[in-house]
Amino acid sequence: MKSFEEYRDLVNRNLSPLLRSLGPMPGELEEAMCYSLEAGGKRLRPVLLLASCEMAGGTAEDALPFACALEMIHTYSLIHDDLPALDNDDLRRGRPTNHMVYGEAGAILAGDGLLNCAAELMARSAAEREDALGARAMYCVLRHAGVSGMIGGQSADVSSEEQEPTEETLTYIHSHKTADLIEAAVEAGLILAGAAPEAIEDGRRFGYHFGLAFQMTDDLLDVIGDPKKMGKRTGLDAEHQKMTWVAFRGVEETRLDAAKQIRLAKEALDRLGLDSRIHRQLADSLLDRNN
Amino acid sequence: MKSFEEYRDLVNRNLSPLLRSLGPMPGELEEAMCYSLEAGGKRLRPVLLLASCEMAGGTAEDALPFACALEMIHTYSLIHDDLPALDNDDLRRGRPTNHMVYGEAGAILAGDGLLNCAAELMARSAAEREDALGARAMYCVLRHAGVSGMIGGQSADVSSEEQEPTEETLTYIHSHKTADLIEAAVEAGLILAGAAPEAIEDGRRFGYHFGLAFQMTDDLLDVIGDPKKMGKRTGLDAEHQKMTWVAFRGVEETRLDAAKQIRLAKEALDRLGLDSRIHRQLADSLLDRNN
Repeated sequence: MKSFEEYRDLVNRNLSPLLRSLGPMPGELEEAMCYSLEAGGKRLRPVLLLASCEMAGGTAEDALPFACALEMIHTYSLIHDDLPALDNDDLRRGRPTNHMVYGEAGAILAGDGLLNCAAELMARSAAEREDALGARAMYCVLRHAGVSGMIGGQSADVSSEEQEPTEETLTYIHSHKTADLIEAAVEAGLILAGAAPEAIEDGRRFGYHFGLAFQMTDDLLDVIGDPKKMGKRTGLDAEHQKMTWVAFRGVEETRLDAAKQIRLAKEALDRLGLDSRIHRQLADSLLDRNN
Repeated sequence: MKSFEEYRDLVNRNLSPLLRSLGPMPGELEEAMCYSLEAGGKRLRPVLLLASCEMAGGTAEDALPFACALEMIHTYSLIHDDLPALDNDDLRRGRPTNHMVYGEAGAILAGDGLLNCAAELMARSAAEREDALGARAMYCVLRHAGVSGMIGGQSADVSSEEQEPTEETLTYIHSHKTADLIEAAVEAGLILAGAAPEAIEDGRRFGYHFGLAFQMTDDLLDVIGDPKKMGKRTGLDAEHQKMTWVAFRGVEETRLDAAKQIRLAKEALDRLGLDSRIHRQLADSLLDRNN
């Protein structure tokens, strides 16, 4: 087991090289994809995938293409999300958003490219393995990223703007738009390590509750966060009339709800019974988030 | 071996059911994806995949998820290509384009959704198989669809607008934007049937030459075609200052070039030595295309 920072560095060192290993591509497309991929970010999802694989007896080496693929999927979703037709954001991680630099056509293609690269990396890795675990992990990631997962949540989020929030709609949007990729990280890591179905289910539950808490604290930051520390503008949810947990429940209740989800996430780890110190550390850090 | 029409009907009957089999999804997203998926089209790529698999001893049943995935990839590329930031087309297959009906945000997400569904279907099928052929076929399809394939060609096409055409740039764009998915169809079908590497390479060559001929006749249709038969406006390439084969070589030379590519495609089939009557029939029909 490595530390969070060691896993993060492993991801940072391999993201662009793995992308480029997929073959020659037009320079402008490569540049646009790497611009967003190398913009930093917490690398939460790939680190969780690597740590989940190693805590269950797998190796980070085997899991690396899947971890980087997951970060590519997260990155493409941000690029498309920031487009004028969607959230119309001009700043992300302290830098101009992709379409501000490469134009809308460039950003649409960079997003498509990153999603395709992610699936391609996983498929290449699965084709090289002698067991079916690679194909199973790949299916798991794509299912959580897809129309019944992240894209479904994103679509519901777009449709819900200007509508009255309900707990049901909010939970649907957050569980899919945010929690799904975090569930994918933990589940896919465990699948690659050959973990048992019950362990994979406990891992998924951790990801679900952690993901909901993560989105709640994200909504809080948009209201009470410091734009300088976050590298993006705040107050955008209200401006876009987004359905957020804070708008629905208020600041204090959202804090309590997030704390409850963090407790449930840690209970799932207790059941899992593996050395999940990185997962615990991440869960504990959520209430003190400033970016 | 079935006829072209039997394979096409098999694809048409299974496209939307396979999409819906991926789980519950927001109604608006499902509707937007199915709107474009069910808009008709020749189903050239999925039919070639099924026919390639069966001529080498595989079954259409095993190949169906891959065939439908390929059509989903083709469909998403048309949806994103038609967006205002790219080709800004309002008519496709005789109906308003996706973003004219579902808005730009809806069309971007429908495209993302179809690409993810394609990868998800192939991954599910690969995970259910006991051999690695599913993962290999999936990798093949995604490689041809990706940044070194179709997306790369699309990116080069966008960058080349308003530039002086050269044979090198044109061949790059057409081989990737168009030929790559046709190569993928033949190669993936042969991979799923367990064909030998030399046969797969002959299949790829057929796809390459057929794909170039297909794009040449496409460029011809934009100049001399009947918009009513084609279900879309003509003359758009010139309007967008697209780099086309006809603009570079003229109508008569393009006809001769296409005929040469068709001959090379059929020579690849001769080397392959399997019952490729559907492939031949499609190659022969290219010079008489009217849509």
